[in-house]
Amino acid sequence: MAVENVCIIGSGNWGSAIAKIVGETTSKHSDVFNTTVRQWVFEETINGEKLTDIINTKHENVKYLPGVTLPSNVVAIPDVVEACKDATLIVFVLPHQFVRGVCEKMKGHFAPNARAISLIKGLEITSDGTRLFSEEISRVLDIPCSALSGANIADEVAREKFCESTVGCTNMQDGAVFHKLFDTPYFRINVIQDHVGVQLCGALKNVVAVGAGLSDGLGYGSNTKAAIIRRGLMEMRKFGQTFFGDVVKTETFFESCGVADLITTCSAGRNRKVAEAFAKTGQPIEKLEAELLNGQKLQGTLTAQEVHEFLSARGMVDQFPLFHTVYRIIYEGLDTQAIVRDI
Amino acid sequence: MAVENVCIIGSGNWGSAIAKIVGETTSKHSDVFNTTVRQWVFEETINGEKLTDIINTKHENVKYLPGVTLPSNVVAIPDVVEACKDATLIVFVLPHQFVRGVCEKMKGHFAPNARAISLIKGLEITSDGTRLFSEEISRVLDIPCSALSGANIADEVAREKFCESTVGCTNMQDGAVFHKLFDTPYFRINVIQDHVGVQLCGALKNVVAVGAGLSDGLGYGSNTKAAIIRRGLMEMRKFGQTFFGDVVKTETFFESCGVADLITTCSAGRNRKVAEAFAKTGQPIEKLEAELLNGQKLQGTLTAQEVHEFLSARGMVDQFPLFHTVYRIIYEGLDTQAIVRDI
Repeated sequence: MAVENVCIIGSGNWGSAIAKIVGETTSKHSDVFNTTVRQWVFEETINGEKLTDIINTKHENVKYLPGVTLPSNVVAIPDVVEACKDATLIVFVLPHQFVRGVCEKMKGHFAPNARAISLIKGLEITSDGTRLFSEEISRVLDIPCSALSGANIADEVAREKFCESTVGCTNMQDGAVFHKLFDTPYFRINVIQDHVGVQLCGALKNVVAVGAGLSDGLGYGSNTKAAIIRRGLMEMRKFGQTFFGDVVKTETFFESCGVADLITTCSAGRNRKVAEAFAKTGQPIEKLEAELLNGQKLQGTLTAQEVHEFLSARGMVDQFPLFHTVYRIIYEGLDTQAIVRDI
Repeated sequence: MAVENVCIIGSGNWGSAIAKIVGETTSKHSDVFNTTVRQWVFEETINGEKLTDIINTKHENVKYLPGVTLPSNVVAIPDVVEACKDATLIVFVLPHQFVRGVCEKMKGHFAPNARAISLIKGLEITSDGTRLFSEEISRVLDIPCSALSGANIADEVAREKFCESTVGCTNMQDGAVFHKLFDTPYFRINVIQDHVGVQLCGALKNVVAVGAGLSDGLGYGSNTKAAIIRRGLMEMRKFGQTFFGDVVKTETFFESCGVADLITTCSAGRNRKVAEAFAKTGQPIEKLEAELLNGQKLQGTLTAQEVHEFLSARGMVDQFPLFHTVYRIIYEGLDTQAIVRDI
């Protein structure tokens, strides 16, 4: 069996947690994987030292995952071309705005039989259509690209708190390899053949979490919130099956990337929290972003707007009443009580 | 169109909330329903007054749903034979231990074309098999019996907090009638043709809630809990489809009776709460029932035991690792951490 060379593209909080897992699994399955894992790390200087040097000597990403020891077989490399040299498995876990630029640099430097997997949350939705990051990677690099998503908070995964995640693969052979690459006793992988659904869930759940947060802010009880979460799950599925057909499987919504990630996003998480404050205070969302998120944009409201433009262009907003109501409450001044009245 | 005569059997907290709804819907749809709704009320004396007299004059069930005005077209009747006279729609909403006895008394006194619906939570599971209350009603009365269940807390429904519920009907014609009978702007009904799945969900969710409570008691995060809820949902579905075949639909688990009721039961509710205390204190479940529930038996642990006996008799405990682990932790002294290790 040919040995797989693994390369990780990205080194933030989630990238570092994943590097820890991949360091462990490659050591364990040394019959399948080259035990040296190369990680592309965007170089930064921390107290006069290079971040790559710190990772390679102290085995800790002191900036993005402090306090967690990384396996010593994970090697940080500041040059992306060098990092992906001869790679057969490429794990993308970096902010989405960098995907295309990084892929352009990598072209032609990895092994010809390489396969990629995207851990990037979200997707681009415009009135023209949708674009999955796995598709973008696949198009630029001309290799198949799977996706991984689930109810996973990086810090909890890094601290080996039990959770699950879903690999949506393009073929089951690659799926089996990715299962070996990510599955550990505390990070349980299910493989399904639906990379589209896996990525859709990761984006659309945030819109639902805004709805759940509005319900919390209005002081509605747990049954009302459960109803909003359930309707949201149905609209996520309807969105997938309407615009991608039977590529998107019903089973996907029972997976960690589906119902589990939705539950956790609606009970914890910033989208829920900011929406709760919105319903309580009536302040504009920009003001709350400035106050609660240091001015960062909230993902759920952005996605609600993108989904609205996409559905509007197709005359289909009425078929997704929860998504539509969230949009109208946040952007059109509709009263917050509409979150139950109009869905 | 023949006018339907509606009779409600039961007058507790949930029965009273349902009487309020049915009083409203029958008035609204007077083309379909006789607007007088007869409710069988188990007679009690409250401060020297008969409960039925109080309901019929003050229009309030002062004992079981104080503070909520019932529609004046709901008439309380202390005699069950009198209450069900000429009824064509019979709503069962009483404690399960009284079902058979009450049904025996009712035989022959309602209209020959009557249909029933059971709002009774749970089902009997023994090593011999399972028995749904809808089946018990149907068998004794020799009429079809549907079921209603969802993420519904009686007090919230009575106070018109938005929620959803699921009617699992035996045929869609009856389903349409029950939709009219229960659907209001604040209590939204979905009708599906799966009365078995609706009832199974209402029982098995409590076992999952025990697992979720253990996770809370151990201080695990929201991802871990979401994973337990998700696995529980999968085992509920597997239980249904293994022992009832394709009578139990996958769609049912996306309904209010499925995922929504499970979410709310795992975030609020006594099963979660007592299991949390169990994991935190290590005290026996009987002691916690005495302390926290005034000695009442917890539904989730009882059901876990019944499910265990049922699965043991079939040599299938290993195929339901979450149910099995909950049972072993509560009844066999297995360490609580097994809730993530062994599922």
